[in-house]
Amino acid sequence: MGRRALFVGRFQPFHRGHLHLLKQILEDFEEVVLGVGSSQFSHEVENPFTFAERYEMIRRTLDDESIQRCQVIPIPDVGIHSQWVSNVLSQVPHFEAVFSHEPLTRRLFQEAGITVLDKPLLERSTLSGTEIRRRMLKGGDWKKLVPAVVAAFIEEIDGVERVRAVALAEGQQEEDQRR
Amino acid sequence: MGRRALFVGRFQPFHRGHLHLLKQILEDFEEVVLGVGSSQFSHEVENPFTFAERYEMIRRTLDDESIQRCQVIPIPDVGIHSQWVSNVLSQVPHFEAVFSHEPLTRRLFQEAGITVLDKPLLERSTLSGTEIRRRMLKGGDWKKLVPAVVAAFIEEIDGVERVRAVALAEGQQEEDQRR
Amino acid sequence: MGRRALFVGRFQPFHRGHLHLLKQILEDFEEVVLGVGSSQFSHEVENPFTFAERYEMIRRTLDDESIQRCQVIPIPDVGIHSQWVSNVLSQVPHFEAVFSHEPLTRRLFQEAGITVLDKPLLERSTLSGTEIRRRMLKGGDWKKLVPAVVAAFIEEIDGVERVRAVALAEGQQEEDQRR
Amino acid sequence: MGRRALFVGRFQPFHRGHLHLLKQILEDFEEVVLGVGSSQFSHEVENPFTFAERYEMIRRTLDDESIQRCQVIPIPDVGIHSQWVSNVLSQVPHFEAVFSHEPLTRRLFQEAGITVLDKPLLERSTLSGTEIRRRMLKGGDWKKLVPAVVAAFIEEIDGVERVRAVALAEGQQEEDQRR
Amino acid sequence: MGRRALFVGRFQPFHRGHLHLLKQILEDFEEVVLGVGSSQFSHEVENPFTFAERYEMIRRTLDDESIQRCQVIPIPDVGIHSQWVSNVLSQVPHFEAVFSHEPLTRRLFQEAGITVLDKPLLERSTLSGTEIRRRMLKGGDWKKLVPAVVAAFIEEIDGVERVRAVALAEGQQEEDQRR
Amino acid sequence: MGRRALFVGRFQPFHRGHLHLLKQILEDFEEVVLGVGSSQFSHEVENPFTFAERYEMIRRTLDDESIQRCQVIPIPDVGIHSQWVSNVLSQVPHFEAVFSHEPLTRRLFQEAGITVLDKPLLERSTLSGTEIRRRMLKGGDWKKLVPAVVAAFIEEIDGVERVRAVALAEGQQEEDQRR
Repeated sequence: MGRRALFVGRFQPFHRGHLHLLKQILEDFEEVVLGVGSSQFSHEVENPFTFAERYEMIRRTLDDESIQRCQVIPIPDVGIHSQWVSNVLSQVPHFEAVFSHEPLTRRLFQEAGITVLDKPLLERSTLSGTEIRRRMLKGGDWKKLVPAVVAAFIEEIDGVERVRAVALAEGQQEEDQRR
Repeated sequence: MGRRALFVGRFQPFHRGHLHLLKQILEDFEEVVLGVGSSQFSHEVENPFTFAERYEMIRRTLDDESIQRCQVIPIPDVGIHSQWVSNVLSQVPHFEAVFSHEPLTRRLFQEAGITVLDKPLLERSTLSGTEIRRRMLKGGDWKKLVPAVVAAFIEEIDGVERVRAVALAEGQQEEDQRR
Repeated sequence: MGRRALFVGRFQPFHRGHLHLLKQILEDFEEVVLGVGSSQFSHEVENPFTFAERYEMIRRTLDDESIQRCQVIPIPDVGIHSQWVSNVLSQVPHFEAVFSHEPLTRRLFQEAGITVLDKPLLERSTLSGTEIRRRMLKGGDWKKLVPAVVAAFIEEIDGVERVRAVALAEGQQEEDQRR
Repeated sequence: MGRRALFVGRFQPFHRGHLHLLKQILEDFEEVVLGVGSSQFSHEVENPFTFAERYEMIRRTLDDESIQRCQVIPIPDVGIHSQWVSNVLSQVPHFEAVFSHEPLTRRLFQEAGITVLDKPLLERSTLSGTEIRRRMLKGGDWKKLVPAVVAAFIEEIDGVERVRAVALAEGQQEEDQRR
Repeated sequence: MGRRALFVGRFQPFHRGHLHLLKQILEDFEEVVLGVGSSQFSHEVENPFTFAERYEMIRRTLDDESIQRCQVIPIPDVGIHSQWVSNVLSQVPHFEAVFSHEPLTRRLFQEAGITVLDKPLLERSTLSGTEIRRRMLKGGDWKKLVPAVVAAFIEEIDGVERVRAVALAEGQQEEDQRR
Repeated sequence: MGRRALFVGRFQPFHRGHLHLLKQILEDFEEVVLGVGSSQFSHEVENPFTFAERYEMIRRTLDDESIQRCQVIPIPDVGIHSQWVSNVLSQVPHFEAVFSHEPLTRRLFQEAGITVLDKPLLERSTLSGTEIRRRMLKGGDWKKLVPAVVAAFIEEIDGVERVRAVALAEGQQEEDQRR
């Protein structure tokens, strides 16, 4: 059994696919560090929730599922890809392998000579942050794609309304750029 | 009568709608701080003018209209929405209410518990920076949408030519990205 | 009469020497921009007050003295001296001459080919931020060195206590470094 | 019992005083977030260890003591005190009270209206990072001031030699500045 | 003959058009500084190669062509156009004229009063970074557009595969934004 | 013979000890990259000269000595030691070994697993930037410690006067901090 794995994602929001992968990793590793990428961003269509809000989603899920051996760590995105891995390494404890759904994240770790592992994904077409945010925006059933405690928390902070307000604001700006 | 209000905008350029709103705010407040957003940006389609140029537009308008009780302060945009309000608060004096046309600005202040006020807008469809920049680019009559002293200043610095050069440069880059 | 002058200082706090110089400059220039240097810093022995607090000190003094034709603008310090003047120029409106008590500020503007002017200073030995902060720390009479409205404001925000707390904290840190 | 407390320190290194305080906080709160301040700094006399190394010290101590309900989060220091609390709030989950030994940290949280609590400290004169680093440098018995697993880890990474090399390098630089 | 010229480009990758222009400039100037723009960026569709990789492309070409009197200097892009020229000036030695294919670069230097010169371009429609990256992506013959040693180096680092992986990752992100 | 070596220094100013070491390295390596550390700093007691000025000192020395096979590259200092090596690697081409007089630089490269080599130094007690700046300040004979063309260049830009002005300004600030 490996000592520690790093699981990198933006968790916008934390969904059932993330939870499924996390449980699988915990079968093989003693500890999992959940690296919350683009941690400084929020109030954007792609990144609606703050780090503190994403932490809360993960925390409540872990408590609800009685999962221990997890640490949640913010990873700000500096936008300089050649420095990104080194930046991550300075902000997380030593780990033996990385898991991530994002192709660029995987590639950057591979180029740096770090072990990147895979697990079979659960319903990738619907269990994705993109699809969940799309449903929040268009009015589809997003709640069944996230753990119940996450759905409850998003309602608590009026999260769907945030996603729509942000999309509206960005839409206006894009229209501006197009003209 | 309130003591001080903050009026946030990018003022690209400062137009008759801004002036109209400013006059209304001055009826209710002793002092107005004009917070010039995205102050560090210029030479972009959405942000063609530097802070110094926008300051000059506002200054000349205030002199021409004999308006006092106004301060102009640059507010750089750090791109981290969850920190933006705190960033603004550290750069402007204490104020009692905020005015802004931009939906995201309004939302961020509201989430931070700060009073956001409204005034009826003047011809919002044409009196907008977007429309003015569009006319500069396409050759429409933009001058009647800004105070006369602003139109004169923009001609002085050859501003329309700048807007076109920047649009050309960005267009080339976008074409690059699309390929 | 010149059109606009820039007066750069940290104004920690705004004192009677600053006021004296400001009045002299206003005799020669139509408008004065008070550039508040190191604007982002506060809660340090050398920089106890925030920009918002320093703005308030200046504002109240101007009102009390019925001085108009002044603008207050924050100038963050980026710590890269060769870029500093260019940085300032991008954040303030066009000006014809600079006034400053600080030798490095003066030198950097001179190397950039900008006119730096002088006025006879008022009691430089006591009318300095350093001396005022020293008196706040050691218990001397600092109030007579600042305008009455500034003294009142500093009391309002419990400023002397801040200066002492910060000095205590820094002292502890220095002791740490010395060991 | 409170829900969550934040315990802010630099943990250079994590010592028995920190552990003592942590245990006391865990009696009153369900979860403790250990905010590792100045997380980006290392290889300095005051900050010899990287965040990853400090994380490892804490992790091993928690495992050794069978402590759960703790999260370790890096807090980079941006050097702008007026923004620091807001910066922290954006990087940690919601908490009800703060604990910290550092006077400036305490003051900044208090000015922001956040509850700062106290616990009786254990042997403050010797159980401090300053004293431990001093002993590492001068050759005193530093091991008894930290948990045994921390002492073992510091030996593993040759930490004492690092502290001395860094002090040597800084000493050379200071001599340079003094001349 | 002029003393020193600055040739600014992103060199993504360094191609035969750049080489052609460089040779022409060397006929008129004693030394050419190749300023590698956006030096910090890589692993993006528009900026696939790191600075170190671009340096290597240029170095090998210069050696192969027995060209001396050239210096290669990284120029990071800070994204603030009004500061860009001042930023460049602080990072390159004094020069007498600038050459660049990019319209915004040319305009910014011109607004700063710096001499911008031209040379007739070689087959601008195909000899452009945009076209070369497009061919790498779509499978066209890109090799004949770059010096043979550059083509060999790109193969050595598996560069075409990088361009495709990055395009894939960005495509996924854009789809996300579009929804 | 090695392919490429990196020689890191601040070169404040470039002196005969640097030149001596450079010549020795060129006996063993085909190319030497002179990495100019703390490149963004200037107008400080420890860093009086800008990068452009230091480049010019090196350039003139290389021309005078007919040395080729050298590249000069700026290395800004980000102040985060754990990221420094990664930062350097992203800004210089691939190299096989590092040379540096500075103990922290050497240590950071060693911790990163990079080969750090040594050459016997020439009169280290006097041939050091610290000693040269000390003599500039106090009036000793600094000229014989640098190549003749460097001495001439420093006179050209009135460098000694700069060193003194900066020392004066810093002295005033330190006095401020001490009170």
